[in-house]
Amino acid sequence: MPWFLPVRHTRHMDKAGDSLAPGINGKRLLERHAAIARIGATGRGGVNRQALTREDAEARRLLLSWTAARGYSPSVDPIGNLFVRRGGTDGTLLPVITGSHLDTQPTGGNFDGIFGVLAALEVLETLDDCRITAKRPIELVVWMNEEGSRFSPATMGSAVCAGEIPLEDALNSADAAGITVREALAEHLRLLPKLTPRALRSPAFAYIEAHIEQGPVLENAGCRVGVVNGIQGLCQYEIDVTGIEAHAGTTPMRGRRDALASALTLINRLRQILDDPHDLLRFTVGRLTVLPGSPNTVPGRARFTIDVRHPDDSVLTQSCAAIERACTAELEGCTLNWKRLLRSTAVQFDSKIIELVKSAAARRRIDYKELISGATHDAKFMAKRAPTGMLFIPCAGGISHNEAETARESDLIVGTQILCDSIVDLLDARGH
Amino acid sequence: MPWFLPVRHTRHMDKAGDSLAPGINGKRLLERHAAIARIGATGRGGVNRQALTREDAEARRLLLSWTAARGYSPSVDPIGNLFVRRGGTDGTLLPVITGSHLDTQPTGGNFDGIFGVLAALEVLETLDDCRITAKRPIELVVWMNEEGSRFSPATMGSAVCAGEIPLEDALNSADAAGITVREALAEHLRLLPKLTPRALRSPAFAYIEAHIEQGPVLENAGCRVGVVNGIQGLCQYEIDVTGIEAHAGTTPMRGRRDALASALTLINRLRQILDDPHDLLRFTVGRLTVLPGSPNTVPGRARFTIDVRHPDDSVLTQSCAAIERACTAELEGCTLNWKRLLRSTAVQFDSKIIELVKSAAARRRIDYKELISGATHDAKFMAKRAPTGMLFIPCAGGISHNEAETARESDLIVGTQILCDSIVDLLDARGH
Repeated sequence: MPWFLPVRHTRHMDKAGDSLAPGINGKRLLERHAAIARIGATGRGGVNRQALTREDAEARRLLLSWTAARGYSPSVDPIGNLFVRRGGTDGTLLPVITGSHLDTQPTGGNFDGIFGVLAALEVLETLDDCRITAKRPIELVVWMNEEGSRFSPATMGSAVCAGEIPLEDALNSADAAGITVREALAEHLRLLPKLTPRALRSPAFAYIEAHIEQGPVLENAGCRVGVVNGIQGLCQYEIDVTGIEAHAGTTPMRGRRDALASALTLINRLRQILDDPHDLLRFTVGRLTVLPGSPNTVPGRARFTIDVRHPDDSVLTQSCAAIERACTAELEGCTLNWKRLLRSTAVQFDSKIIELVKSAAARRRIDYKELISGATHDAKFMAKRAPTGMLFIPCAGGISHNEAETARESDLIVGTQILCDSIVDLLDARGH
Repeated sequence: MPWFLPVRHTRHMDKAGDSLAPGINGKRLLERHAAIARIGATGRGGVNRQALTREDAEARRLLLSWTAARGYSPSVDPIGNLFVRRGGTDGTLLPVITGSHLDTQPTGGNFDGIFGVLAALEVLETLDDCRITAKRPIELVVWMNEEGSRFSPATMGSAVCAGEIPLEDALNSADAAGITVREALAEHLRLLPKLTPRALRSPAFAYIEAHIEQGPVLENAGCRVGVVNGIQGLCQYEIDVTGIEAHAGTTPMRGRRDALASALTLINRLRQILDDPHDLLRFTVGRLTVLPGSPNTVPGRARFTIDVRHPDDSVLTQSCAAIERACTAELEGCTLNWKRLLRSTAVQFDSKIIELVKSAAARRRIDYKELISGATHDAKFMAKRAPTGMLFIPCAGGISHNEAETARESDLIVGTQILCDSIVDLLDARGH
């Protein structure tokens, strides 16, 4: 017997091959995107809705008002992941989980994360609208702090759930103002309606996450759906360079221990070492802080992050070793220290989920493409706990983590429909 | 007739050659350094007392309490420079002005600036203690925002006084939090006792400023006093690099428009262009800000400052032209924009003041050395308005703009005594 058994019925809501295929409500989906996009709107087309901020809470409150109207049961785990459950008829069955995140980068777009959350909600509501009874429960999840821009590391909520980061470490993580996740989460929960507490690692039957691609592959290939077969490996570092503060006017260049100058030398060296003729490796310095940060003082301290990724885990391991070697030496009179923030190996998604999404797209006659995810997602950690897959839709120019990020309305609707079709196949559902 | 006529008397307070030479109170001077060092103390040996902060106001309040006890008259000009006047017997004579600044870098030391302020106060009080009557008034000045770490540019108060920066521009300068000088100054004045307003550009007879050297020359030469013959030229820029924010995991390296990467390329190029085999040129990137500053986002914006200095103005002009040429091109897909924050030509101090300080040091048998100042000081702008000079004392290792900055007590006392002797010669004074 396969690990899941799609149940096919004769009374369809919407004909698509021979499966039970309720049609989603595209208008509602788009209206909700517009409503959420107002929360944390920057006025330049994007949003700033970082984890556990007031804006994050406001977006969750709005989401909870929609789910409350349906009578779904909300719960929250100790790291602040939010779950909303539509019950099944068989209390013994594990839930299918679907969702994503609704926190954003400081200058984020209107689709990264939130699309997967609203697509999931649309699936739940479509089941109700089409009077579909499922034996299996379905849960919408909103992961806490996927972006990692306020609190480090990224994908914190799902990583804690998978036991990859101890809960205590995550709760002690502090933002630039010194506020810890523990403090911010307590305040956050005060802003939400009362939620049932739930355990960290409740088991799941399967997990599917819908997301914008955040890269150019689908658009270039002219495909409306991406069937994601895995996630490339990722490693993040924080590098600390310590020199000696000095007066910019009086200190000769030769005697300086300029922390920023050393940091720049190091970054340039790493760019050369990690140059990849195949252009598969990604190397990013996304944050760099200089202290004391005064125009007429030679910097005594520089701190920066490195984000390095590759689809092939062995290449990534070699790259990380090269970074660590380059950071152990003293450089131009300054001291280097490094700390690994995050290392996640490349992940392969479940072949049956991959086939399920492909088959759903094929039934709807949607051009799809199988691809690896360049970005990390919470699905990476769910893949350790349950059969997991992801579904991408294109975003214009592959641009994401940018206020200009955008996705076509028709792609949002098609992606949500394919997610819905795939999930219905997992739910042991029937129409009435 | 010379532009000033030292008056020599037979009743000395303290014999030093044949001039009127009242002895300063070294104990009081050191106690006041200790008292001011507590205001804004970082707990690591240094202070953070940036312009127009609460700490700045507290230090000025303490200073004003000391001057009020002597009955000196305080006044403030429209940009927040503070003056304290000890009157002379001839109401028609212009004042000798002496002083410095008491704002500091974010991680500043206990002597940069404040030494010149407390040395000046010590001169005023010594005149009283020794019952010296002077025809000429003497004014202590505390310049506003010499450091330029909170509000740009540096030496703001003296630059406005000299008409180098329009008052309105200075008042509109904002700190990182968006607070303008205008707002911060209004709040600052509410925290001080009532001060008489005074015009921006009241004339002066002469200006002498005492300061720590902030470089290694005096210490290396074994001299306790530096007679400063001028200030090297300085130019500051702000460079803005605009690229495109993108996702660090999905965006191939070849297609990126990474603002930080371009900034680093530019800075490295400038380091090469401006490399000076004589090690006279100073090139510093003291501030660098990266936006959005998230580890997993390719930076869309980088902004940094350049501080470049040279004793020879023609070399500095060439260096500035090279910087401006390098910043006009597009670089690695990013747009470069530059803005000149500050350009001050090299300044030559008044030869008579230079001779006066040398002669005062010689009478006290103090080893002195004539030198150029590597740092910019408010004296630079006073030099445009009145015969001006400076006097340096050594600081350990030449270290300044650093919490480890320190100066020997005996050097503080000797420097103050030479300042006092030099000023007495300017005041048309007599003992009783």
